[in-house]
Amino acid sequence: MKLLAPCIILVEPQLGENIGASCRAMLNFGVSDLRLVNPRDGWPNIKANAMAAGALEDKTFNVAVYKDIKEATYDVSYLLATTARIRDMNKPVFNSKEGIDKLIIAQNQGLKAGIIFGGEKSGLNNEDLVKADALINIENNQNFSSINLSMSVLLICYEWFFNTIKLDKTTDIPIKNEKVMANKSELNYFIDRLVSILDSTNFFTPDEKRKVMINNIEAIFTRNNLTLQELNTLHGIISSIIRS
Amino acid sequence: MKLLAPCIILVEPQLGENIGASCRAMLNFGVSDLRLVNPRDGWPNIKANAMAAGALEDKTFNVAVYKDIKEATYDVSYLLATTARIRDMNKPVFNSKEGIDKLIIAQNQGLKAGIIFGGEKSGLNNEDLVKADALINIENNQNFSSINLSMSVLLICYEWFFNTIKLDKTTDIPIKNEKVMANKSELNYFIDRLVSILDSTNFFTPDEKRKVMINNIEAIFTRNNLTLQELNTLHGIISSIIRS
Repeated sequence: MKLLAPCIILVEPQLGENIGASCRAMLNFGVSDLRLVNPRDGWPNIKANAMAAGALEDKTFNVAVYKDIKEATYDVSYLLATTARIRDMNKPVFNSKEGIDKLIIAQNQGLKAGIIFGGEKSGLNNEDLVKADALINIENNQNFSSINLSMSVLLICYEWFFNTIKLDKTTDIPIKNEKVMANKSELNYFIDRLVSILDSTNFFTPDEKRKVMINNIEAIFTRNNLTLQELNTLHGIISSIIRS
Repeated sequence: MKLLAPCIILVEPQLGENIGASCRAMLNFGVSDLRLVNPRDGWPNIKANAMAAGALEDKTFNVAVYKDIKEATYDVSYLLATTARIRDMNKPVFNSKEGIDKLIIAQNQGLKAGIIFGGEKSGLNNEDLVKADALINIENNQNFSSINLSMSVLLICYEWFFNTIKLDKTTDIPIKNEKVMANKSELNYFIDRLVSILDSTNFFTPDEKRKVMINNIEAIFTRNNLTLQELNTLHGIISSIIRS
């Protein structure tokens, strides 16, 4: 089934570059409903346009500006909030993967879902977080934990996209199989030829090691799913060296 | 158990901003070994510093510059390459999650792992991709699929971090290390030797096909995770045929 993408709500974002990079990241993963709460430098924003790399001109993409989180979430029924720190707050805290799992469960129940992100400087404050149904804490390196705003947006949209294509049976990656694989008899013909040449060059010494050495050679060429063309290349290499 | 983070290799990156943002994204997820192949604007780069948000001053973080992929992967045994398109190339293609699973399996076997990313303009070309053991294609919105370079780096490092903390929490996977895998410089030495022999036997005719023929040969021997012992067997085979 096809789920409606969640909306992404940026609360008091500062840099146009980050808003633009968020737009690009969202649309890369099929998320196209961006809501800005009090963007510091107003909207539209030239610096955002450059970083959006065309996302803002895409007909499916929409940006709207709101004065507070309440307005921005007017139609949202399941709201997640991202936070860098795990707060002392009686709310479920999920990592990014668990959080998106929960969000998709809500969407499957027909709920409109959204995710709020705080501004670059200090993230969401407690009054913002309290509005959410649950918190997402992106697990990362605790010695260098400050993730760029647009990068956080990317990770969340990526997880959402990935989990929804798992649900959507029509988006299976087609198996490309135009190449003609060598079959076992073609492979064995090559190995026999190589062994016979190596017998003539006295490669297999001492004699009692011959069997295990042949096994090793066979293992090398059996393991890598050779195409018929590649097998012919190997024949050509041997012929070329012999002739010289 | 604690796995050593993979190295991230950016091939001919253009914008310092993207390199800097990649540094921050890497260190956010505990990845600290960045290798630059021919960065367009040189290195160090002031614009990178601003976007790195302190990552470059972190004592655990390291950046080195190399002249080509071969040099940059000298100590790498399991190499993944990211590509936006699924190429007609006989290599395994994974999505980001599967690819990182495979990489961690390789790391658990004691192999040094790396991931290469192409530049902003056109990504990695076929000669680059052929050097990798497998390809990663980040599944996304096919109507707006161009992901910013640093965002791609982020997604891969995030998946790596997340999967390794999963390992931390569950039982340790035993390290299988009876076999010594060949690293990329040992493999490249073999391929260079073979190519040089084939040059002397006039294998590569007509001349305009030389490049694509070399790519094909490289693909054959890159794909099957050769052990050092197997690589020595291949050297021995060639020496034996030449001597005869």
